[in-house]
Order: sequence, then structure tokens, then C-alpha cells
Amino acid sequence: MKHLISAKSLTKQDILSVIDRALHMQNVQKERNTRLLEGRIMAALFFEPSTRTRLSFETAMLRLGGNVISTENAKEFSSAVKGETLEDTIRVVGGYADVIVLRHNEIGAAARAASVSEVPVLSAGDGAGEHPSQALLDTFTIAKELGRTDDLTVGLVGDLMYGRTVHSLIYTLSQFSNIRFLCAAPSHTPLPDDLIKFATARGATVEFETNLAKVAGEVDVLYQTRIQKERFQSLEEYEASKGLYVIDESILEKMKPSSIIMHPLPRAGEITTAVDRDTRAAYFRQTHYGVPVRMALLLDSLTTDEGV
Amino acid sequence: MKHLISAKSLTKQDILSVIDRALHMQNVQKERNTRLLEGRIMAALFFEPSTRTRLSFETAMLRLGGNVISTENAKEFSSAVKGETLEDTIRVVGGYADVIVLRHNEIGAAARAASVSEVPVLSAGDGAGEHPSQALLDTFTIAKELGRTDDLTVGLVGDLMYGRTVHSLIYTLSQFSNIRFLCAAPSHTPLPDDLIKFATARGATVEFETNLAKVAGEVDVLYQTRIQKERFQSLEEYEASKGLYVIDESILEKMKPSSIIMHPLPRAGEITTAVDRDTRAAYFRQTHYGVPVRMALLLDSLTTDEGV
Amino acid sequence: MKHLISAKSLTKQDILSVIDRALHMQNVQKERNTRLLEGRIMAALFFEPSTRTRLSFETAMLRLGGNVISTENAKEFSSAVKGETLEDTIRVVGGYADVIVLRHNEIGAAARAASVSEVPVLSAGDGAGEHPSQALLDTFTIAKELGRTDDLTVGLVGDLMYGRTVHSLIYTLSQFSNIRFLCAAPSHTPLPDDLIKFATARGATVEFETNLAKVAGEVDVLYQTRIQKERFQSLEEYEASKGLYVIDESILEKMKPSSIIMHPLPRAGEITTAVDRDTRAAYFRQTHYGVPVRMALLLDSLTTDEGV
Repeated sequence: MKHLISAKSLTKQDILSVIDRALHMQNVQKERNTRLLEGRIMAALFFEPSTRTRLSFETAMLRLGGNVISTENAKEFSSAVKGETLEDTIRVVGGYADVIVLRHNEIGAAARAASVSEVPVLSAGDGAGEHPSQALLDTFTIAKELGRTDDLTVGLVGDLMYGRTVHSLIYTLSQFSNIRFLCAAPSHTPLPDDLIKFATARGATVEFETNLAKVAGEVDVLYQTRIQKERFQSLEEYEASKGLYVIDESILEKMKPSSIIMHPLPRAGEITTAVDRDTRAAYFRQTHYGVPVRMALLLDSLTTDEGV
Repeated sequence: MKHLISAKSLTKQDILSVIDRALHMQNVQKERNTRLLEGRIMAALFFEPSTRTRLSFETAMLRLGGNVISTENAKEFSSAVKGETLEDTIRVVGGYADVIVLRHNEIGAAARAASVSEVPVLSAGDGAGEHPSQALLDTFTIAKELGRTDDLTVGLVGDLMYGRTVHSLIYTLSQFSNIRFLCAAPSHTPLPDDLIKFATARGATVEFETNLAKVAGEVDVLYQTRIQKERFQSLEEYEASKGLYVIDESILEKMKPSSIIMHPLPRAGEITTAVDRDTRAAYFRQTHYGVPVRMALLLDSLTTDEGV
Repeated sequence: MKHLISAKSLTKQDILSVIDRALHMQNVQKERNTRLLEGRIMAALFFEPSTRTRLSFETAMLRLGGNVISTENAKEFSSAVKGETLEDTIRVVGGYADVIVLRHNEIGAAARAASVSEVPVLSAGDGAGEHPSQALLDTFTIAKELGRTDDLTVGLVGDLMYGRTVHSLIYTLSQFSNIRFLCAAPSHTPLPDDLIKFATARGATVEFETNLAKVAGEVDVLYQTRIQKERFQSLEEYEASKGLYVIDESILEKMKPSSIIMHPLPRAGEITTAVDRDTRAAYFRQTHYGVPVRMALLLDSLTTDEGV
């Protein structure tokens, strides 16, 4: 069964296969009478709200001609009074739907769900753990915008300790050749050692640079993330760090013409709106690529014929 | 792009065009295999719950053969922690859906959304501001039930200061000829001056009458609204006012055989249930007309061919 | 109009007709292009969350080719500020949808809704009252798994005083021949007298036995329910009772090879997960049968031609 649980466990071949299929899905998306998944039902089973991710997956299923059942209230299954385990919930819902998209607040929930499920489980994020469909859409964005996934200098900016999307991107990009990561993080939230080891073990380079303008001048991809106030020991430290890592027009001036700016969104000031007008601002296109990438994942999980 | 933001800015021609199309939609609604909007997706993006309006729009989209993605939890996009602007949310969701139906708690939100959106935005109400699809279904109700939108005496009853639907109805009806508004409001919640000016500037008459029975005897349309307790300075004043503006069988007796009673619903006692049995009680038909009117709006926003 | 309000009022013929139709629906469920209810809309109108029941009904409608509008927020209609009656809400929603599936927190709500509705109302449970579609899927489970609905010994285990599903099952099974109920309940939550009278008046036998192992050895169906902590006068009594009514592998050893274990789910420890591996553990199949049974109910309510 084709579950999607972790970006870490994806092979280069897995990733390239999703990219290929998602490129094809961009055409399917424009059609108005696709019946590739006609009569199939996707359950969006969200134990915590993540409206953007849910709407993106639901759109993907509908664009393929399928149907959706949905809840952002899945905690109700396991409320104190009812006490149902995740495993039981998955077995119940697996009798209704043909594929389950699962968002959960606990690390490892997606793997537990997959271990008992009679239908494919696609993780839509589990707690502070992974968010593999985001990693795939980020990788797809690079492939689509720059035309390659090898020979890249990628600036990773912001909270690199807790930033789930940055970790997942390191997992996928490290599978490719000649990848150089340039990390620009506040001192309180550096990139964890295990991720540095993962990347270097696969031949990628990891470097550190606190000057955002310098980073901007060297990269093909500038991947910005949110800095979260609650990670800092004082408001002063937060305000100081925050200002150092904002992408504005002055940073844009330093960037190469062929480079792009990415962000998993939502943003909260760390990219100014003046930047939006520049064609290198790829973050809205990035979020829109979520639809063809998730179409690719849904189609792959529900069809045995790889020739679609 | 065909946004729907305000009833105030609709021309007579706009309104007549929606009425014509909605009359046609009443037939489409009865069909079971309409594919007019096949493969199209409507996003119902509600920053506050308005279940009735949401279900009515969703029904309209489904009756046209389209699909729906939906959230009443849109505030989650802009939660304190995430801090996303409405403009960013609209740009994200505009990459998923072909049309956005927006309900928001702030006046002007619909206009802000439309200013950045790549897809049509249909307002489903913004705060204490306008609710233009309600205005159009109210106007459609009069056209359908009475066979005309000119030469009307319309009684406006209840809270005329804060009643959003009454204001919108004044905006649309004032576009037509020989319109006379008869206002019956508690003294604390009179019709604001700018609405009186809007109506009279377009040739409509605005008169005031505190005796509901007198109003009832003269009108073609008796438009009732809710009186909200929190608008009054004391409970005594509230109770006193409330009793004066209830439509019951004694009021019904005063009304002309060809007149109708309207109410935007929900009601809370200001029309007694005994009135429901009278054929002049048009308020349930009125809410049901919301479907063909919203079908007309959706179809208009998503098709360039006006010949449908 | 074909409402579904109460299991108590179903005749033997009604029940057999649903079973027959649901058997057929199991085949329809596997098809991917059924259009039996194309263009029809089901409103899932839930005044309290019951995610499992809602998803099951929605799946059933989608498997028949129909569409769904849905809210778990139906209380918003009748919020303090708005004060709408259930009857008004039903009249409004009945103008949008072709059938209403209603979950409500008050006993009798389904009957009140049906009395004013212009479209069929299918109860999805009303407060501590009935849950007729659950009763029908339970009865279908027995018919499907054992091949008969006559000549049965049925063990009813757990909270028999407040357990809504047990009561509904007694209403349906008592219509058949040679039914023997073996009740195993904590002394604080015995089966109410009116249910004993209902069953015996129709020729069923009702016996009592506190030893679960003895019950297990005699039954064709072992119907387990949750014991709810809040029903007991002390935590000690609760813990003592709870242990006496757990189905584990030792209970399984006592059961006949051809018998089955049922549970309305969710469970909270009263059947151990070790039991799941036994083919007699029918509770996950039982919840999955909810889909064809609800397909049968929807199809029946929306078609006049009984020959489908």
C-alpha cells in the first residue's frame, strides 16, 4: 500500500516520480471533466485545524473527479468521554473512504495510522514531526521554477531548530547532487546536528552565515520561515533577531536575477509586501503548486497502473 | 472580473439582469444533471459562522454541477500565532478555487479581498457592512411574488438603524420608479440620514409611521426585521418596543390581499407562527429564493458568455 | 413522505426491506460511477458533533452519486442571539436540500422536525432518545453475519439503562421469532421495565445473568456497550463493575465458533485489542455496514420507485 508518512524516507526516485506526475497534473487541473478518481472518496481527518492544507488536499481530490468527506473536529472521536484510540478511528474511517489524509498533533501518528489502515494514509503533518507533502511541493517548486534539483545553493533563513518545513526540505534536497545549504538562523534556534549529519552524509554542504544580505547574494533559492516569538528568552532578543532576518527590497537587490524566494506561508512580516511584486517572489506560486503535487500523491495512492 | 461587493453600487441594469437569470435558474435547479459549472470549485471562506448563508451558496454551486471547499474556521488563517493578512489568505485560496465566497467580520473586507484576488469574490456579508446577495434575493422575492419592482409601497419595520438587510434593500429598490418607503422603527433605532438621502436623491419617498397596523394597511411589502435587545437602554424600553412591532393575525387582517410579508430570518418572535399559514407570509419562500439568486451570481462570475 | 424517526415504530416488513436493499447497496458501493441519486443534495444538520455518524451518512450519499451540504455547527441557527426554532431551521434547510439528516440533542427533535418538513427527515440520533439508523445497521450486521434474524440468543452487556443502541436493537429484534435476550448489566444500570415489557409482549424472552463468561457460552451475538463512569455512585463501584464486563481472550474461548461480538463503537477498553484478531470480532465490519444501510435509507427516502 502506498502510504506517505515521512519525507526522510523518500528516495530520489520517489521524489522525481512525484515531480513528473505533478507536472502532468498541472494540465489535468485545467480540465473540467476529469474522471480519473471518479467515485473515489478521500477522508480529510484533521485532529487539529490546518485549513490551508485541508483545502489544498480537498481541491486536489475534486480536481481529479473524486469526492471528499471531511472533519477538523477529529478530536471528538477521542474526546475524554469517548476515549477512542487513533488506531480504532482509522479502522472505522477506512471502511468509509478510499484514502485517508491525516493531520495529527502527535509525532508518529501517521506511522501508527498506516500500520493498521486498510486504505492508504497520506500524512498532512504530525505535530512537530514531518509534513511530507509540504516537502514535496517545496521540491516541486524548485524543479518547476529553476528547471533543476541538482547544483543548487539554498539559503535557509529563520527558525531552523523548530521549522518543520526546513527539515523536510533538507531530507528531500540532500538526495540530489551538489547541494549547498547556507543557514542563517538566530543563535537560539540553530539547525539541529542530526540534520547537518543527514545532509553531509549524502554529500551536501552545510554552511553558516548570519548576514542575510550576504546569503541573498549567493543563493539560487532563498527559503524564508517564520521566527516565533515564544522561542526567545526575552522580547528584546526577539525584536533584535526579527529585524535581522526580514526580506525586503534591499535584500531583493542583492539576489541573482534567476533566483527565487520561497516561504511555506503564512508569513507575519518576515517578507515585506513590497517584495510580492518581484517575479522572484515565488511563495504564492509555491502554495498553488500544492494542488498538482497533492493530485499526484492521491492518484499514486489510489491507482496501481503507473501509466496514468 | 465580476466581483460582488456592495448592493449600493449595483445599477438598475445589474439588478434586473440578476433577476432575469435567477428566474431561469429556478428551472435549472429542478434538473438533476446540470453541468453548467462542472469541474469548477467554489471556496466558502467564512471568518465567522453564517450557516444559513453558507449552505445556500453551497447548494447553489452544487445545483450547477460544481464543487465546494469550505471553512467556517477561516479565522484560523489569521490567528494570533499565524498573523496572516486577509490579502494573503485570498491570494492563497485563489490558487485553489475558481471563485471565493467571503464572509468576514470587518466592514470593507470584501473590497480589500477583491482588490488582490485573481478569482471573483462574492461577498457573503462583511461585519456591520453590506450583504449584497441578501439584497438581491430580497429584490428577487418582490419581483417574483408581486410581478414588479416599480410602483411599490414598502413597510420597513423594526431596527432600521443597524438592520443591514433593510439598508441593502433601500439601495436596490431606490433604483426603481415610484418607490415609497414607510418606516416603523423604535425611537432608539431610526433609519440613518444617509439612507434617507440615498433614497430621496433617487426619487423614492421616505415616510415615518409608528403605528404598525396603519403601515400594514398601506403596503405592498411588509419587511419585518429583528429588534435586538442590546440596542436598548433598559429592558423595559425593549419589552415595550418589542410588543409594538410584532406581526400577528391582527396585523395580517389589515393587509391587502395582494401584499406579502418578508423577513430575512431567523426570527425570534416578531412574526407569530400563526401567520405562517397565510399565503402572504413569503419569508420561507424568500429564503428559498436564495438558491436561484446565488446560482445566478455564481454563473455570472464564472462565465464570460452572457448567453447561458 | 418517508421519514426515519424511530426504531420502535418500524415493522418487521420495514426492517426486512432495509436489509434486502442494503444487501444490494453493498454491490452499488463498489461501483465507481453510480448515478442513482445524481443531482440530489443531502443536508447533514448536526446540532451536536457526531463525526462518525456524519461521515457515514455523507459517504452513503456520495456513493450513490449525490451531493452533500453539512454543518456540525447547527446550534448557531438557534444561538441565544438569534433564537430560531428547530421548526424554522428545518423549513429553511428543506428549501435547499432534498433530504435532511438530523442529529439533535433533545429527545423528540426528529419527530418535531418531520412534522413541519417538506423533505424527508432521517434521524441521526436525538439526545438520549433513539438512533434508528444505528438500530438498522446493527440488525443488518446480524442478518449479514449469521444469515438470519430469527432464532437468536443475544447477550446484551454493559450499561443497559442508558445505552441507546441496546434499546433500539431490542425494538427491532423483538419483531422476529424465537428471540432470547440475555442481559448482563451492573446493578446500577439495569434494563428498564418498559423495554422488558416491549420485548416480552412480542414473544421474546428476557433473562438476566451477571456472569459474563456464562453469557458468552450461550449466545449467537454478544453485544457489548460502554460502561460510563458518571453513572456510578463511587469510583470503586465503577472500577469493580468495569472489570466484570470486559471481553477479552478468556471470554472469547467460551464463545461458540459461529457467534459474533458486536459493539456500536467507540470502545474504551471494554473489548481488549487482542480480541480484534478473531474473526468473530464483528465490530469493525458492523460500523462499515453503516454505509450500505444508510445508502438504503437515503435511496428509499428519495425514490418513489421501489424497484431500484
